[in-house]
Amino acid sequence: MTINEKSYAYGAQKSSIREIAAYGSARKAQIGAENVFDFSLGNPSIPAPESVRASIARALELPPTQLHGYTPAPGLPAAREAVAASLNRRFGTSYAAGDVYLTCGAAASLSISFHTLVNPGDEVIVIAPYFPEYRVWIETAGATCVEVMADPETFQIDVPAVAAAINERTKAIVINSPNNPVGSVYAQKNLEDLAVALHDAEKRLGTQIYLISDEPYREITYGAEVPWVPAIYDRTIVCYSYSKSLSLPGERIGWVLVPNTNPEHDHLVLAVAGAGRKLGFVCAPALFQHVVIDCVDEPTDVEAYAENRRALTEGLSALGYEFIEPQGAFYLWVKALEPDANAFFERAKALELLPVPSDSFGCPGWVRVGYCVSKETIVNSMPAWKKLAESYR
Amino acid sequence: MTINEKSYAYGAQKSSIREIAAYGSARKAQIGAENVFDFSLGNPSIPAPESVRASIARALELPPTQLHGYTPAPGLPAAREAVAASLNRRFGTSYAAGDVYLTCGAAASLSISFHTLVNPGDEVIVIAPYFPEYRVWIETAGATCVEVMADPETFQIDVPAVAAAINERTKAIVINSPNNPVGSVYAQKNLEDLAVALHDAEKRLGTQIYLISDEPYREITYGAEVPWVPAIYDRTIVCYSYSKSLSLPGERIGWVLVPNTNPEHDHLVLAVAGAGRKLGFVCAPALFQHVVIDCVDEPTDVEAYAENRRALTEGLSALGYEFIEPQGAFYLWVKALEPDANAFFERAKALELLPVPSDSFGCPGWVRVGYCVSKETIVNSMPAWKKLAESYR
Repeated sequence: MTINEKSYAYGAQKSSIREIAAYGSARKAQIGAENVFDFSLGNPSIPAPESVRASIARALELPPTQLHGYTPAPGLPAAREAVAASLNRRFGTSYAAGDVYLTCGAAASLSISFHTLVNPGDEVIVIAPYFPEYRVWIETAGATCVEVMADPETFQIDVPAVAAAINERTKAIVINSPNNPVGSVYAQKNLEDLAVALHDAEKRLGTQIYLISDEPYREITYGAEVPWVPAIYDRTIVCYSYSKSLSLPGERIGWVLVPNTNPEHDHLVLAVAGAGRKLGFVCAPALFQHVVIDCVDEPTDVEAYAENRRALTEGLSALGYEFIEPQGAFYLWVKALEPDANAFFERAKALELLPVPSDSFGCPGWVRVGYCVSKETIVNSMPAWKKLAESYR
Repeated sequence: MTINEKSYAYGAQKSSIREIAAYGSARKAQIGAENVFDFSLGNPSIPAPESVRASIARALELPPTQLHGYTPAPGLPAAREAVAASLNRRFGTSYAAGDVYLTCGAAASLSISFHTLVNPGDEVIVIAPYFPEYRVWIETAGATCVEVMADPETFQIDVPAVAAAINERTKAIVINSPNNPVGSVYAQKNLEDLAVALHDAEKRLGTQIYLISDEPYREITYGAEVPWVPAIYDRTIVCYSYSKSLSLPGERIGWVLVPNTNPEHDHLVLAVAGAGRKLGFVCAPALFQHVVIDCVDEPTDVEAYAENRRALTEGLSALGYEFIEPQGAFYLWVKALEPDANAFFERAKALELLPVPSDSFGCPGWVRVGYCVSKETIVNSMPAWKKLAESYR
């Protein structure tokens, strides 16, 4: 092979989530959508709010070059201003438009953040189980992805384990709360302990350690408070996307925030822009930048996910499944009924149930059940879950 | 600096085109838009065709999850199919949907292509003058950017010079026709000569050399025929964007084509997908994938650019400026009135004229004048061009 081997490998392997979703689509075409219970993808079933449609309609009335033209690379000033103002209202901060860099969604936010921070040879710590694409982007930026298991009881960050994994090559830690795939929300105390551990390590090693807070599920919680991470640890970068909160995953719109409290703020703002430029992100889609201006404070329809969560947890509970009670996001982390999650998945698949086995999340023995589907899918899947459980008796 | 130095540098330097455009916007705010003649950016002044608006309206009636949901990473099957069918109609080819990978615009197409092909240590040849971001993306992919000057009279590819620049590390050559910044369209014979030279070099060196054909201006010509490059050289990848043809530069929608005639087709299709994944491109913006389905054969309003071209070339001609008669795209390559194009630019700037000096295109002594502006801007700029010329008498 004379072409780039890693690109080939990443194309040939595919993401297991995407692979299962593709199988689900094909299977639905074969036997009817109502007979396949596809829990693989984090594709919200809840429509985008009506205000998105209204915002698009309004944008279409703009003068042509303002409507679909290039925006500045970091985004329309009004959109960046709207994001900063919204954060300031919610978290008592004093961010400016210049701290916000609009991106083509969370994947871009994260890829850009890794390319902003790491140099070849660096290490980036992820809290397992974790979103598998983190590893792809971390390795592409030239760093090593170091997995640290979450606390196996609470799925909070295991701070002593993180501290033990830090060395002079550790450039950053990625956290994701509310968490995909587990649904945990990191408590204020947990994050404060992490901050102390990071500062201790920085002092001990004479290095700087960054915290990348990946927050696409911030608005989707079931009572839990999601602390504002930059208020707890200074060297934080926040990654966000409207994919989940506004149900716009296909439109690729999100942002990176370099808080003005980050001691490297001015350098990082430029490096974020440089990383975006390097990778070929010219600007975030212009039409959806206008949507951000209008819909930045639009509430997320959490009640629909809460109902799904109830239906799924009550149903699986009654069938004897064990799972982690999710505090946020829209995934249920269910214990496989045998040690090998892939074998368990194959049995589920034979019953037309499509969760995602946990191995690709860096953690054996579980499956992720995405409940951002229709409630009907959850209710109608229960006989199959029952058969699956019975097959293990 | 412990963060990524190259990202910082790319953020701190900025693209000179973007820098001039930002100055232009600020200056317009100061002294009024009508008093600044900003020829810096390739931002079409011609509105997107009415069919784009109609397509967006139609898409908004789709079921919610189909509308804004994740698409498959390479794009909606119907959109890929539409692109392949359109190419087949126009070029007598037999491409399939699977040969087309939708991207977030031409920058993404190129960045993905470089990451698909090159390994660290490889060289990629560009034909100077060239779009300056090529160098950024080539270097980011780990390769060296090698400049080969175009023929100084015709601005066609100087094939002997390309042949002389090829060595065992040469992985690819990027061509861009119709050309930004010069407006040349490479003739069939010129491309055939290039193909012979590349095949000779492949045989001599025992290597494979790819041709990346960057074609966002394909539809914008003034009579010249734009040959279909994969019909001339087998190891070609085509990069395209709807930024110019549909006036959608801010929406980030384009594609990479791996023609079925490329001997590495199957490997490349996977590697393109892997490169997109690696860089954090999840999918092209979903709404504009629907627009592609509807508008793939929409004609471009070339007449407006032709009128601008006439006004600009006649005006500058009468004032004694020398320039290359553009066969396509919407840029005029004008000889600076002194050897130092930056000094010439500074004098122009003092008269509120904002072309782009040629140095960042890898070629001294010229300026690029983008005529995708309103005709009014061109006409009203003539007194300033006159003063500029007079200042050199």
